[in-house]
Amino acid sequence: MSRSTLALTEALIRRDSITPHDAGCQLLMIERLEALGFQVEQLRFGEVDNFWARRGNGGPVLCFAGHTDVVPTGPMEKWHTPPFEPTIRDGYLYGRGAADMKASLAAFITAIEDFVQRHPDHSGSIALLITSDEEGVAHDGTVRVVDWLEARGETIDYCIVGEPTSTSTLGDTIKNGRRGSLSGTLTVKGQQGHIAYPHLARNPVHLLAPALAELADTVWDRGNAHFPPTSWQVSNLHAGTGATNVIPGTCEVKFNFRFSTENTADTLKQGVHAILDRYGLEYDLEWALSGNPFLTEPGTLTAALGEAISEVTGLSPALSTSGGTSDGRFIKRIARELVEFGPVNATIHKLNECVAVEDIERLSAVYRRTLEKLLA
Amino acid sequence: MSRSTLALTEALIRRDSITPHDAGCQLLMIERLEALGFQVEQLRFGEVDNFWARRGNGGPVLCFAGHTDVVPTGPMEKWHTPPFEPTIRDGYLYGRGAADMKASLAAFITAIEDFVQRHPDHSGSIALLITSDEEGVAHDGTVRVVDWLEARGETIDYCIVGEPTSTSTLGDTIKNGRRGSLSGTLTVKGQQGHIAYPHLARNPVHLLAPALAELADTVWDRGNAHFPPTSWQVSNLHAGTGATNVIPGTCEVKFNFRFSTENTADTLKQGVHAILDRYGLEYDLEWALSGNPFLTEPGTLTAALGEAISEVTGLSPALSTSGGTSDGRFIKRIARELVEFGPVNATIHKLNECVAVEDIERLSAVYRRTLEKLLA
Ligand SMILES: [Zn+2]
Ligand SMILES: [Zn+2]
Repeated sequence: MSRSTLALTEALIRRDSITPHDAGCQLLMIERLEALGFQVEQLRFGEVDNFWARRGNGGPVLCFAGHTDVVPTGPMEKWHTPPFEPTIRDGYLYGRGAADMKASLAAFITAIEDFVQRHPDHSGSIALLITSDEEGVAHDGTVRVVDWLEARGETIDYCIVGEPTSTSTLGDTIKNGRRGSLSGTLTVKGQQGHIAYPHLARNPVHLLAPALAELADTVWDRGNAHFPPTSWQVSNLHAGTGATNVIPGTCEVKFNFRFSTENTADTLKQGVHAILDRYGLEYDLEWALSGNPFLTEPGTLTAALGEAISEVTGLSPALSTSGGTSDGRFIKRIARELVEFGPVNATIHKLNECVAVEDIERLSAVYRRTLEKLLA
Repeated sequence: MSRSTLALTEALIRRDSITPHDAGCQLLMIERLEALGFQVEQLRFGEVDNFWARRGNGGPVLCFAGHTDVVPTGPMEKWHTPPFEPTIRDGYLYGRGAADMKASLAAFITAIEDFVQRHPDHSGSIALLITSDEEGVAHDGTVRVVDWLEARGETIDYCIVGEPTSTSTLGDTIKNGRRGSLSGTLTVKGQQGHIAYPHLARNPVHLLAPALAELADTVWDRGNAHFPPTSWQVSNLHAGTGATNVIPGTCEVKFNFRFSTENTADTLKQGVHAILDRYGLEYDLEWALSGNPFLTEPGTLTAALGEAISEVTGLSPALSTSGGTSDGRFIKRIARELVEFGPVNATIHKLNECVAVEDIERLSAVYRRTLEKLLA
């Protein structure tokens, strides 16, 4: 008999695990997993709690991955009910982390409990890779666990990250990859001066403008079967000190690429430098690569998960690589096939985050059926 | 026997008349003028001291105009000598206001004293229009005195504003006009969104970029015999909240025109709107006109002042309309001919402001000779 996924979700929400704090969530999961015969290794890096758990020695290894940490609540008084007191209203469970991703964590546990009860001698291995630093800087979380697994020579055959990927209905979207993310901080140099004497100054805003127009207008690629086109966006643009009679000395632009596998970080860097150089700009440009694009081609894992979703929800999920980055970018290094699947993401990171109560048990059923298709 | 212009300059510098405070400077001038038979009318508007003084009833009226206020000192510890303790070193008199424009005020007084002593029954009238709010918002200064004079039906034939117009040597430059100044605050509207979902947002930086490039590249006019070409400059440009994963909702541009008589505020406004509209931008645009361009064609006043300068300095001054705005823009309304002439402006508004000691008496001589040419 499975215990209630809803009850475990509520118990996890009650623990106010704002990044990087785990607040006891992992212990709750570990107790349940050890009762099922999992070997659990707690891995604290810096101030971040992580664990790796495994049941079975052989392959294939099916790993559920996720995070216990949640983003801050925002203004408490704007929540209809307290964010760390799980509350059901009109068929929705409210609380910080309800959708991102404590319902998924609870569904991992109850799905595994159900599966192990029915198939105590399953083939392959079931694993969990859980961190409490996904929403923050993510330096001491999944990336460190993956380093540690790599050093031990461990690999994963199938990985399901429990991120909330559904957009309007549970089951409508599986992410089978993510775009790369490359950021730049550009400082264009001019010559400061009084606005009444423009011939003694060089206005960096004026120097930058045509290059900025070209960067904004450039088609970097047209995407491909798996990825939307690469996108370049300015997030911040600043010049001037506030004084209205001074031509600024510099202009700073922060921008970000979300990129497909049709480009690499290097080809994009070269493209930007070529445009800036063509306009003869004098500039500094600092790059930061958050993650390369990764992709799991349709195969065994997408088929098994897709069928499980159809059986539970009646939907045929779309494969998508859109949206932000996730810890999948780190795990893919040691995982043959990796997808992300979880509840509707409409309220994540917002006030009054919630998940449909009926989706919680349905999510558990999807994960259990996937286990059955791959390890029964 | 004239008294020392240097001594009066020093006495004025000792009075720390930071805008809008006069700190007793005007009283010092008024006592000297009344001793010469001037009728003085003190005009306090708001917290600003101003005065109008006149000797004689008939025309032509030759008016000396200027301000007793000075800009703030900046960091005191960076001055080699205290800014309100006049100090002579290596042939220069140091102090806040030395060049802008207490030497000119002192030279007005001693030039008039010399002239009246030699020509007690001069023709026409000598006048002074002095404010203590030229460096500040200038709402209660010269503009109010001009309103008051206009209401009385007073007009000026020849006006010499004592602003420091010389660039490298006393006498090298007379300003016979100034460009107009028109400022705008442009807010381009987009649609804020997450940088990973650019299709759900509209980036105002990207929308603005080609219009900005065109504005920066536009030739507004080529100037004319008296004015340099109209110049458009961005002083401040801001978009984004600092978050690097958010497409900003708006982009703000502050800009300024310095414009010749080949354009008007209206033609420039129309030109900007035409470009913004051509790119289909959604925007707010607030305009502020600081002053229209004004010009005194070469004539009686420029000839008299130019000859006086040549006799004293040996130089043939250039006529120029470059540089910032001045109170001349207000006085020109009631003045037939208006020019600006004063000491070297290299150190004005800076630390360690100074004026060459020898230029102080020479400036007085230039003003006195101009009086002689026009009113003797
Ligand atoms: Zn998440
Ligand atoms: Zn001045």
